[in-house]
This record gives sequence, C-alpha cells and structure tokens, in this order.
Amino acid sequence: GGFVFALEKRGYVKAGPWTPEAAAEHPEAVRQLHREFLRAGANVMQTFTFYASDDKLENRGNKLTFTGAQINEAACDLAREVANEGDALVAGGVCQTPSYLSCKSETEVKAIFKKQLDVFIKKNVDFLIAEYFEHVEEAVWAVEVLKETGKPVAASLCIGPQGDMHGVSPGDCAVRLVKAGAQIVGVNCHFDPLTCVEAVKMMKAAVEKAGLKAHYMVQPLAYHTPDCNCQGFIDLPEFPFGLEPRILTRWDMHKYAREAYNAGIRFIGGCCGFEPYHIRAVAEELAPEKGFLPTGSEKHGNWGAGLEMHTKPWVRARARRDYWENLKPASGRPLCPSMSSPDGWGVTKGDADLMQQKEATSQDQLKQLFNRSKC
Amino acid sequence: GGFVFALEKRGYVKAGPWTPEAAAEHPEAVRQLHREFLRAGANVMQTFTFYASDDKLENRGNKLTFTGAQINEAACDLAREVANEGDALVAGGVCQTPSYLSCKSETEVKAIFKKQLDVFIKKNVDFLIAEYFEHVEEAVWAVEVLKETGKPVAASLCIGPQGDMHGVSPGDCAVRLVKAGAQIVGVNCHFDPLTCVEAVKMMKAAVEKAGLKAHYMVQPLAYHTPDCNCQGFIDLPEFPFGLEPRILTRWDMHKYAREAYNAGIRFIGGCCGFEPYHIRAVAEELAPEKGFLPTGSEKHGNWGAGLEMHTKPWVRARARRDYWENLKPASGRPLCPSMSSPDGWGVTKGDADLMQQKEATSQDQLKQLFNRSKC
Amino acid sequence: GGFVFALEKRGYVKAGPWTPEAAAEHPEAVRQLHREFLRAGANVMQTFTFYASDDKLENRGNKLTFTGAQINEAACDLAREVANEGDALVAGGVCQTPSYLSCKSETEVKAIFKKQLDVFIKKNVDFLIAEYFEHVEEAVWAVEVLKETGKPVAASLCIGPQGDMHGVSPGDCAVRLVKAGAQIVGVNCHFDPLTCVEAVKMMKAAVEKAGLKAHYMVQPLAYHTPDCNCQGFIDLPEFPFGLEPRILTRWDMHKYAREAYNAGIRFIGGCCGFEPYHIRAVAEELAPEKGFLPTGSEKHGNWGAGLEMHTKPWVRARARRDYWENLKPASGRPLCPSMSSPDGWGVTKGDADLMQQKEATSQDQLKQLFNRSKC
Amino acid sequence: GGFVFALEKRGYVKAGPWTPEAAAEHPEAVRQLHREFLRAGANVMQTFTFYASDDKLENRGNKLTFTGAQINEAACDLAREVANEGDALVAGGVCQTPSYLSCKSETEVKAIFKKQLDVFIKKNVDFLIAEYFEHVEEAVWAVEVLKETGKPVAASLCIGPQGDMHGVSPGDCAVRLVKAGAQIVGVNCHFDPLTCVEAVKMMKAAVEKAGLKAHYMVQPLAYHTPDCNCQGFIDLPEFPFGLEPRILTRWDMHKYAREAYNAGIRFIGGCCGFEPYHIRAVAEELAPEKGFLPTGSEKHGNWGAGLEMHTKPWVRARARRDYWENLKPASGRPLCPSMSSPDGWGVTKGDADLMQQKEATSQDQLKQLFNRSKC
Repeated sequence: GGFVFALEKRGYVKAGPWTPEAAAEHPEAVRQLHREFLRAGANVMQTFTFYASDDKLENRGNKLTFTGAQINEAACDLAREVANEGDALVAGGVCQTPSYLSCKSETEVKAIFKKQLDVFIKKNVDFLIAEYFEHVEEAVWAVEVLKETGKPVAASLCIGPQGDMHGVSPGDCAVRLVKAGAQIVGVNCHFDPLTCVEAVKMMKAAVEKAGLKAHYMVQPLAYHTPDCNCQGFIDLPEFPFGLEPRILTRWDMHKYAREAYNAGIRFIGGCCGFEPYHIRAVAEELAPEKGFLPTGSEKHGNWGAGLEMHTKPWVRARARRDYWENLKPASGRPLCPSMSSPDGWGVTKGDADLMQQKEATSQDQLKQLFNRSKC
Repeated sequence: GGFVFALEKRGYVKAGPWTPEAAAEHPEAVRQLHREFLRAGANVMQTFTFYASDDKLENRGNKLTFTGAQINEAACDLAREVANEGDALVAGGVCQTPSYLSCKSETEVKAIFKKQLDVFIKKNVDFLIAEYFEHVEEAVWAVEVLKETGKPVAASLCIGPQGDMHGVSPGDCAVRLVKAGAQIVGVNCHFDPLTCVEAVKMMKAAVEKAGLKAHYMVQPLAYHTPDCNCQGFIDLPEFPFGLEPRILTRWDMHKYAREAYNAGIRFIGGCCGFEPYHIRAVAEELAPEKGFLPTGSEKHGNWGAGLEMHTKPWVRARARRDYWENLKPASGRPLCPSMSSPDGWGVTKGDADLMQQKEATSQDQLKQLFNRSKC
Repeated sequence: GGFVFALEKRGYVKAGPWTPEAAAEHPEAVRQLHREFLRAGANVMQTFTFYASDDKLENRGNKLTFTGAQINEAACDLAREVANEGDALVAGGVCQTPSYLSCKSETEVKAIFKKQLDVFIKKNVDFLIAEYFEHVEEAVWAVEVLKETGKPVAASLCIGPQGDMHGVSPGDCAVRLVKAGAQIVGVNCHFDPLTCVEAVKMMKAAVEKAGLKAHYMVQPLAYHTPDCNCQGFIDLPEFPFGLEPRILTRWDMHKYAREAYNAGIRFIGGCCGFEPYHIRAVAEELAPEKGFLPTGSEKHGNWGAGLEMHTKPWVRARARRDYWENLKPASGRPLCPSMSSPDGWGVTKGDADLMQQKEATSQDQLKQLFNRSKC
Repeated sequence: GGFVFALEKRGYVKAGPWTPEAAAEHPEAVRQLHREFLRAGANVMQTFTFYASDDKLENRGNKLTFTGAQINEAACDLAREVANEGDALVAGGVCQTPSYLSCKSETEVKAIFKKQLDVFIKKNVDFLIAEYFEHVEEAVWAVEVLKETGKPVAASLCIGPQGDMHGVSPGDCAVRLVKAGAQIVGVNCHFDPLTCVEAVKMMKAAVEKAGLKAHYMVQPLAYHTPDCNCQGFIDLPEFPFGLEPRILTRWDMHKYAREAYNAGIRFIGGCCGFEPYHIRAVAEELAPEKGFLPTGSEKHGNWGAGLEMHTKPWVRARARRDYWENLKPASGRPLCPSMSSPDGWGVTKGDADLMQQKEATSQDQLKQLFNRSKC
C-alpha cells in the first residue's frame, strides 16, 4: 500500500519532503492505516520508514522534532503491533538517498543505509527491502549492506521498461541485483500497474537467461500513466497534486493482479495512490489462489454484488462482473485532455541540477526554476 | 466530509446497503476519520448515522449484530469525543427512509425519525440536520419532527438546479423547508460543487423573495458531474465503483469554497468523495475569512509550497499558485470518454419499481433488471 | 450544403471576409460544388450569394474586381445551370448586413436587401431565403422586403434554443417571421444538428400555439458544438481554423436527418462544414420517404456495405449498420480536451465593439484586441 | 494530396474497392481536384491511377464500364492537362496488387505492373512512383519493372517505424529499394505526419550508413493516428467512415512541413485525408525556402491574418500565429474517447485470410467475419 500518499491525504505527511515523522508524531493514524491494509488482505506490513534516512530528514529545512532513530523505531513497533493482529510479516525498508544524488561516495552512502539497518535489526524485522531506487548502482550498494544482516533481502527499483536513469535495462538491473544478493527483485512506484508488470517480466526473462534464480515483486502506482517517459509520474504536470483523474478503480486492480500473477510474480502489492480498497481488490482477485478472502471483504460484495441491496433498481442492475469489467469510466472533465506532456529535464545523477541542499529553495532559485520550466 | 464513501474505501462500510454499523463495530476507524476531518478544519462533527433508521438497517437482508439504537448511540459518543478534542459542534442527522419510498403514511415515516431523534436528545447533540432527501415532502416531515426538540434544525436536499424528484424547484423547496421551521437550508450529495452552489443560490433567491430569513449550507460531492440529469450521480454508469476519474483535486476545492462563500453560503462542507485533504483545502481557501489555518496545514504548504523541498528542480518549479490554479489535469485514460450518458429510469416515489423489500434481490429479479437496463 | 467553408478549403474563399466573389472569379469551382451537392441529393441549389451585399463586399478592405451585381448574377446563373442538370429548384438568398450591426436605419438596411433582390428577380429564382440573421428584427425587415416580390419566402435565423442576440426566444422569433410573411421558418448555421432541431421544435410549437401555419427548415453546422453559448460556434476558440475534430461523420448525419424528419421539419439541409457526402447521408437516411436514392449513392454502399469489397477481412467485418451506428469515434488527440470554453464578449448590436469599419483592422487595434482577449 | 478519399467525399469514388474509374467516368471532378491542388502549391500531379491495375479493377465484383487501359489513359491526360496550367510535373503511379497478397508468382505480379506502365510510357509521364506497398518484396519487384523504362523512379511504402508486414525495418526496406534502383524512397499513407517523418528518418539513416545515396519523400495521412499498430489506420475501428475527429488542422500541417524539411526530406506531400487547404499550409510553411507563396494563398491570410476582417472583435483577436500554434482543439465529443484499440488480426501475406476473391463477400462469409471480430 501507499503510506506516504495515503497519509498525505489524511493530513499526516507533507508533500514535497514526504518524510515519515508521523510514525512518531501521530502513531494512531499510522496504526489505523496498517490495520486497514491488514484487513484488506496484506501479508506484509512494511515499516513506515520511507525517506527516513538522516540525510533526507535533515534535508531542505524540515523541522526535526524526532531523530531518525526515533522515527525508525516507532515505525517498526507499529508495523509489528498490527502484523501480530493478523499473521503478517514485517519488512524494514530503505530507499534512495539525497547523498547519492549529490555524488557522495559509496562509503558515505552505505553508512546511511547501515544506520537505518541498525534499528531494523534491533527491532528484529522479518525481512528487508531496498526500494525506490532510480539508479541500479545505488540499489546494489543498498543490497550489499542489507545482505550482511543475514535476513532475506528484496530489491525494488522505481523504473519502467526503459530502464534506470543511467539507461541500464530492467533485465541488466535485475541480474546485477540478484548477483549482489537479492532473493526478490522487482519494481515499485513511478509507473502504472501494467507498465510495472511489463518491466518485471523483462527482469524475470533476463534473470532466467543468466541462469540465476529469484522471486519477483511488483508495487506499482495506483495511477494510470500512459504518457510517462523514463522518469515516471514525477515528470507528469499533475504530480503530485492533480493526479486524481488517473486513480485506478478496483476493477483495474483485478486486471493488474491477474496479469501480475500470470507473469509469475508472487509478491504483488502497491505503492503511491493505493488505498486499502485497492489492495482488497488484489486480494479478492487472487482469492482462488490464496484459498480465502481478506477480512475486509465482509464489507464488499464480489464484483459489485453489494449493489443487489441498493434502493434504485437500475443501480441493482449493475451488480454483475461484466458490467464493471467493461466499463470505460468517464472523467467528468470535458475541458481536460486525456494525456499530458511530461516535463522532465532529462538530467540524472551527476548533473548539477540534482545536487541536494539542506535549506529551503530560495525565492531567487524558484524564480530561475519557473523561467526554465517555461522554455 | 463523506464518511460513508471514505469508510467504504477503508473497508468498514458496504457499498449497496451503505449502513453505518461501523460506529459500533469498528469505533477506532470511525474515530480516526472524525479526527482527520477535525485536523482538516471541520467545525462540525456529524454523527455517523446516515441510513441508521431501523427500517433501513433491517432492509434488504443486512445482518443485524447491533440495534439501530446501539449504532446511533455509538455514533453520537464518537462524534462528541472527537469534537471535544477541538472546539467543534456535534450535529445529529436523519435522512430519507425506505418507508417513504414505499409509500408509507406520514405518521409511519415520522415515527421513524422520532426514534432516531430520541438518541440524539439523550446524547444532547448541538443541533440537528435533516439531510439527503430527494423529495421535499419527506424533508418537511423530518423538519417538523426535528423542530419539536427545540434544537436548531438544518435541512438539506440531495437535489440540483432541476429540483426534487417530483419536479419542485429548489426555490420552492427552500421556502417550504424554512416555513416548516428549518433555520439552515441547502443541498448535499448527488452533484458536484459548482452545481450544488448553483442550486443553493436559487434557494437563497427564493427565500429572500418570499420575505423569509435563513442561513444556507452546501455539502456537494467531491466528483465532477457535468453529465448528470435530475437524479444526480446515482444514475451515472460509474456509480459507485468507477467514479475515481471524477474526483476533485484540492485546487478544485479552492474554487468551490470561494464560489460558495461569495454566494453567501456560510455552512460549507462536503459529502460523498470528500477526503480530509478536500476539507483542508476548503479551510485553507477560507483561512483569510476565518482568521486561521486548520491544524492539518502544518503538513501542507500553501498552494503547493511544500514542493519547494522536492528533490527534482522541475517539480520545485511547480511550487506556485498559478501553476495549480490553471492546470487541466489529464485522466491518463485515452480509451475512456470525458462524459457519460446517465441511465436513470425516470421513476420516482409512487412507482412500483421503487417499492423496497427486506430480502436480498433474487437471481430472477436481477435477471429482469439486467434485461431492462439493456433496453 | 456549406459553400463558404467548402470553397475555403478548396482555395476559393477567404476566411475572415467570407465573401463569394468566386462565383464570378472561379465559376468552374463553384459549378463543380453545385454538381456535387446535386449528385448528393440536394433538391435546392442555393445561389452562392452569402455576404454578397455591397456594404459587406466593400467592408474591411476586400479588393473589388467584381461589382456586387456581377457576383450575384454569376451566382444565379451557376445555380440555375446545375439545377437544370437535375430537377432542383433555385433559391436566392440574402443575409445579415454590417449596416444593421453598425446601427443603420431600417430604410438603409432594407435598401441593401432590395439591391440584391433586383438580381434575383431578373434571374427569376424560384424562391427566396432570408438566412443567417442573429437578430430577429433585421430578419423581419428582410422578409418584408423579399415578400414584396410575390415569390415564396423562407426565413432562417442563426440562433439556438437560447434565442436571438437580443434574447428573443426561438418561438417568439418564429411567430414574428411568420406574421411578417415567411412561409418557411427555421434556423441555420451556428449550432450542431441536434441543437438546431431542438430550436426549430421550439419554433414549431410556438407557431402552432399562436394558431399560425408554416413549413419548417433546418440547416445546421456539420460540427459538434455541445459547448457553445448563445452566439454559437463563432465564439468557440477553434473557430474557424481548428474545427476539424468536431466534423460530423456520415452516421451522425443519419441520426440528424431522422431526428429532423420526426420533428416535422421538411426542408432539411446543411450549412458550414457540410460536404457533399454529408448531404448524401441525409438523402440516404430519408430515401424511404423520398422513394429513391441520390445519384451519388452509386458510389456509396448503404451503411458501409462497400466495405464488403475491402482487401482485409477485419475491415469487411465492419460492413454493417450496427457497427457504424454505435461507433464512438476517437479523436486521436490525447493532449486535447473534448470541450472548450467559448470566449464571446457578451456584446450585441448597439455595442460600440460591433461597429463595422471598411478599412482593415490596424496593428494598434489588433494589439488592443489581443490584450482584451487575454483578460 | 489524397485523391481517393477526397473524391469519395465528393461522391465519385466508392469506399471499399477504392478504384479510380472516375478518371474516365467523371473527368470534370478529377480535373477540378487536380486544379485545386495545383493552386494549393503542388509541384507534382500524380495520375489518378491508384488501384487501377486490371486485377484490382476486376476484383470483388466492381462493375467494369471502362477497361484498365482507358482509366489509366484518361488519368494521364487529366494530370498532364492541369500540370500544364502551372509548371508541375506528372508522375505515374503503381501500387500493391491483390495478386501479390494472393501469393501469385513474381512473374505474374510484374506483368501487372508492366501493363500499367505501358500507358505511362505512351503518355510520357515525367517520372514514376511505386507507392503504397505493405511488403518491401513486392515494392522491389515494382521498382525493378519501373526501372527498365529509364524514367526516374520513386518508391514509397505504407509502413511506419515498426517496418513492413513481414517485419523488415524501414532502414532495411530503404536500402533494398535504393539497391533495386529507386532514386527517391520514403513512405506514404497509413500513419500520421510525424510518425511518417520518423519512419523516413530511419530510412535516411540506414541508406547513409550503407554508403548509398537517395532523395527522400513522405506522403502521410491527414489523420492523427497515435493509437495505430504496425498496420496503420486500416486497423482503427474508425476506418474509413469515422475518421473525421482525427483530421489534421492546417496548423498541424505547418508543424509537419517544418519537421519533414528539417529531417532532410524534399518531396513533401500528402495522402488520404489531405484536402487542398492542407497542401496549401505545407506550401505556406515552406514559402521562405521555395521563395514564393502558392496561388491559392490569395484566398488565405498568413497564420489566420484573414480574421482581421471578421465582424466580431474577439474573432479578430485570433488573427495571430501564437494563437493558432498553441491551440489544442476540442473534439466536441464528450462521449467519445481520444484513442481507440486497433483491431487487426495480425495476419499478413501468406495467410489464408488474405487470399483475394473476385466475387463480393457472401452473407455467410460476412457472418463469419462478424463473429471473429467480436472475439
């Protein structure tokens, strides 16, 4: 599920820095979201530690009421508490760092991962995920660090079929990650479900061709992104405050879950935009394979069956699979287009534009950015 | 805010019956949602008692672990608990009944309102709302019952500029409600914000023309509905499981809040589809008038200002009002249309099609409905 | 059919002034277009005399190789020549004048109509049409002038269901035109077919309610205009050089023809955007009523039947009515919206903005216009 | 320009067989269209001999009032007559044959080209074009036949960046055609302008990489086709009777002409969907390079300048380049999508589905096709 975006909508995460201090600040909100995903059928509670590395927390003027360690510990406790209410596993996650983008050394970047890891080991998470990496090089560093703990390691890049920001193909990325020690490889975030499944298929084909073995994971966006270039939804003009028209329906999720399963992927989840009902749809589609429905399905009829109890007869007539499966939902926005032109600048790690600073962007810097974005 | 839809997505309400047993069953989920709306700037906690009349709860085969009284009481306690965490008021709400639709007598229908009301009085809510009525006649009955308590009464119809299901214009509806004793009149649900504001403007003009006095309220959908006929979003083919592309952005909410305020409406809220961040946008737009920002704005930069801290410079360039105000967000759905043809049957109270039954719709009945909907 | 727009695309009419000097300058092109409409099933050849009044021809710097009389005479000869190749009638048309817009007197405006009329009488056209009037007052003046000839007179306004530019309803307009002596009344141009049919229905209802008798005509655009306000397609940002995505298909024309016929309209034609194949579609839809197909149908299979001879089998599978009748054609323009915001200034005759001048607009005037249009 | 589609709309060509008997049957209509393209700035009059091979004319039950030779001769005469009115060249064209699709031998297919060629030689056309080939193999055969005449030979495939129907890339196709003797190579039909330019760029790169020399040509559709697969617009559900919303504006043509010129293409024209005003837009964009405007520009202001003489001031405000260059024209079709799913069957030459027959498709065959297309 997509904690960062879901908690932003609920009022506990700030868009822009996207840091997870809510784990310590508002534990009841984070706990409740964990519970909803558990009810929806999630088998893994991922610690809410996205962007919780110290260098990110300090970055760009975010106020620091809590230390990174406090946030990471609180997140582990919440994940474990709710996981124990069902029979879910707890996964501790690290992700890409501003340090890498600012061209810090391998040693410096690895030290950052190590610091987060210490908390995960202390709190005894069940396995580890290196996720949301745009550059396979940094992901390999992360896997190498995580691997030393002896815990199972999953590695997930935020890339699509076009490969990472340095142009490394999904297949080559996957091979490098498996060789570095990842037991599970895949992609997360940045692209819509079918695009992500496509990228993981390419990974699987390359890993198998290289004679290696791995499991596969996918955690896409809950947004339709047919118009993205290699950098994904960050570059869409709608990111992050105008993505609503792109949100997937539960029926889109059924297609995604089936497609992912058919591709041989067995860790099937979601990232930004996923709400509990999206995960429930995935769990419902795969209920035949899992052998049971999620708890949350007590409040959901199969393929709209709950509508059999609606007041209006023409709404009751929608209580059937083929209706929802074939619906092409309208946007209600006749003045808006159906696709956008992404506006990325084609820069990547190593470019001066991407050096990160701790201070908030100044008005002068902003003015320069506006002018460049108009060109 | 829209409790029913929000809790459906979170896994605690079943679409179709839409009943609020979660107040008793899963109080932590309901409490959390109340808190999020409070943080977002809501000044009124509405008891989660929509469709909590006994006749509705019994209707159409819903299992009955809790009595209507238990649900209504739990909902009042939750609303009061969270209201006291800030300085919000508690409003107890009643809404239209299956009994009216099934042509029961005025006495029978009023008895149902009375039963819910007993709980509200016992729990001492601050004021009362008769909301979500498609027929002004039933709304007047509700107001007459609520009025007897001596509490302030608000009355809100789920109608648009075309008027109620019997063709009574918004203006005439409003005059009848004010004469019946409502101090606040307006509309809620069924249409998008600007359409609802339009309907309330018509109400206000008629009330003033009649030499009466009232306050005005509006609680629209958070969905764009330019293609609706008089019955509203119920008739859209996307209702209720494919409405995602229609969800309003926070910037749409700014426009709505300003428009509503300018129209002289002072009770400005939301209904189905509203998430906490939508209410926060309303509160932020009206912060100059209220004199302060909502608590939740600590996690939200004004007009996207939080993006000043984003990693990518071209995203930082979006940290400005004119960018978001002028954005025409794409749907990411090039195979989908921008509007739909609503499929209502043009029937209303009094038509045999609308007689309500307690049992679930049978397979035979469903087959008949499918065939009719194909014509 | 729509001579002005069709000949603009063929290179013989200049968009902006829209004057018909081609009748004298390039008779072969005008003759050919007449022939195509005749083949397509047209029963009336309308003289190509739109905007051929002297005041319009002189207006705004158009070079004047031919006199108004020469153009009007040439147009009459061409219409008659082709009409005689089949068994069509010839109609001579006058339309609204810059003089009226510039607030000239009734006498002055009527003198302009009279001058064109002299040619029509000399050339002995079969009947007369006063068409494309935005203000019923000017149309009444035209009918009064035409009426004096003793020829049958038709009167057609370029208005929609919202009425004329002074707010007179279609019904009232029609009654005034019939009382002034028009035997046929209706609307042309400015709106799409179904909108125009709607307006004529309102006319018919009012004429009948007034106890009068008339025949009805409709000559809509071949462009979809769901987003127009009262002034019609002139105000769409796409007018006149970006209307392509709005062009009706032949199948849209079948629906229009049937709808118009069912509404009791018996003079069913087209205006701007109509190409010969659009008129053929109208004639094919109404072939059962007329008793025969147009000549041009020798090159057209009924409802796509010609595709039975296509090379590819999956294209042959499209040779059937239900395929084309239900097709929702895509725009191939995912970056474009489906509707626009019209940008009219809400001014009408009597406003200084609409005073007409003979000279071309100066650069200074243009700069002022650009600035106003940005507001 | 696109004779077949333009004359279909004018009533002289039948969609499905698409054969050019109008050259003999209705010479005035063909002559007029030639003249319009000449006025629009065309430098080459292509003989209207598309699909004029005897095997195609006999194919699928088309009635045969004229022999292939008669049609080809008439077409040559018309092209020459109008070319001489300006200073245009005449090009004789052959295109793909049903015989090839039905797996006839190289000798048989070449004999068909030879027969058409005899007429072109007799009529002394200026150069020859082998155009609209889906399979490079057949195109090479055509070039080999044409080459023997000693006339300059151009070769144009109806393919896109994905290559021919047997999967040969555009680059490889071009190299084979140049080696077979074509002096000019390129693509025509099947895809929109920018897609075609992309394909020709690939051709140019490959020809240059192979150390060969050639000139380049491009004759795209005047329809937007972002949703096409390798077979082009034939597979779009809108083909051929619902393509209207996809028609390019004149401003789209400006972009195309500039893009093609910048890519080093010097034979820049159009295919299906092109009307005279589209060609004029190409000629106007390239007027600085050519040194003069086309004759037809006497009826066209540069970038909308004609609107300076429009009646309404807000329309006069549109008389400027940046207005039209940035316009995103709306479709006026809110119930339609912006893209379609093409429905090709993935079959190509050699597949039984593509064997051609002379008789019209029988009702039984059609029924089978309908059923297959539903799957």
